[in-house]
Amino acid sequence: MSVIPAAYEPTERTVPSRSRERARYDRETVHAILDQTYLCHLGFVRDGAPVVLPTLFGRVGETLYVHGSTGSRPLLAAGQQDPGLPVCLTVTHVDGLVLAKSAFHHSINYRSVVVHGTAYEVTDEAERRMALDALVDHVVPGRSADSRPANTKELAATAVIRLDLNEVSAKIRTGGPNDDAEDLELPFWSGVVPVAPAYGTPVPAAGLAPGIAVPDYVSAL
Amino acid sequence: MSVIPAAYEPTERTVPSRSRERARYDRETVHAILDQTYLCHLGFVRDGAPVVLPTLFGRVGETLYVHGSTGSRPLLAAGQQDPGLPVCLTVTHVDGLVLAKSAFHHSINYRSVVVHGTAYEVTDEAERRMALDALVDHVVPGRSADSRPANTKELAATAVIRLDLNEVSAKIRTGGPNDDAEDLELPFWSGVVPVAPAYGTPVPAAGLAPGIAVPDYVSAL
Repeated sequence: MSVIPAAYEPTERTVPSRSRERARYDRETVHAILDQTYLCHLGFVRDGAPVVLPTLFGRVGETLYVHGSTGSRPLLAAGQQDPGLPVCLTVTHVDGLVLAKSAFHHSINYRSVVVHGTAYEVTDEAERRMALDALVDHVVPGRSADSRPANTKELAATAVIRLDLNEVSAKIRTGGPNDDAEDLELPFWSGVVPVAPAYGTPVPAAGLAPGIAVPDYVSAL
Repeated sequence: MSVIPAAYEPTERTVPSRSRERARYDRETVHAILDQTYLCHLGFVRDGAPVVLPTLFGRVGETLYVHGSTGSRPLLAAGQQDPGLPVCLTVTHVDGLVLAKSAFHHSINYRSVVVHGTAYEVTDEAERRMALDALVDHVVPGRSADSRPANTKELAATAVIRLDLNEVSAKIRTGGPNDDAEDLELPFWSGVVPVAPAYGTPVPAAGLAPGIAVPDYVSAL
């Protein structure tokens, strides 16, 4: 039985050119950053130029899944290109605004993951179904079991691509401002303003039968 | 005097391949989406492969500015390439989780802007200073006037690139789930869970003089 190493192997493009002390390669940190959101920004090259699109993603072990219409250009490209579509998938959480005494030392507390690799279209039906469940459950854990699964027509209209976690890095900034010693007496406020996503009160769909309560997995968000 | 048209001209790459009814090209909508956040995902091509990095940005009229260390690889590339660095800059707000009766119709309410273009290094000192102020004020409006401006050494260590707003589109999804009529009687809860960033109580920097109160422009966030 092969053992998965506890960390991703750094490569030339996953070692940052600066602030290297912020880089992390351990799987636990990377998975936690990936699992605390559902939105990623997917980059690919079209006609020689970069394209970055926001999209949902799911994770199953060491594989990320992205889905879309079979008419979507990047997903078409992943299916048609051999060997797949080179992509960069990036996830970012903003945790705080860092206000320093000097404009120069202003910053953001954040946690990000950047995944480099090649995306391939998933054609196996069982894997496609698993990936779609993972996508729904990544947004609202527990939801896939409490909705109608995709039917044959919907499955045929949906393309799924997979991106394995091999060339991966996380980057994390925490803490207060790093002001220069000679600036500390300046009369400006300095510190951190915490930021986090907040969920509002669920709004039932128009016409939802009154007897259907908000599920616990939604209240728990 | 030239008049700026009220909308960006759609191009082949700013017309989405699907959900075209979600696309917007008017400047007012685009500027509002850009100005309600400070985080973008910047895509570019390195050695033929896509790279997507999270970074801060500022806006001055029809120009976006991104900054970084002069040792940063993309910024170096923008300065060294003639004519500049092809980029795609994307901004996304998540406004709600859309839970449908069917897994297939699950979605996200969002507002995004995608900017295609070429980034150039800014070398004019006055424009560089203006851009750096815009970057700070984009995160916390009013902050640049209440901090120490960059000195000569800091300016020399900072690269600024500009990206003009020419090839731009917004995409917006709002409202509840779009379930199929035959699914409406299914016993699952459906609706929208609103999402928005929330600011926590500001945390003063270690050693901040007790007499310096949290400024109004921070409390106002």
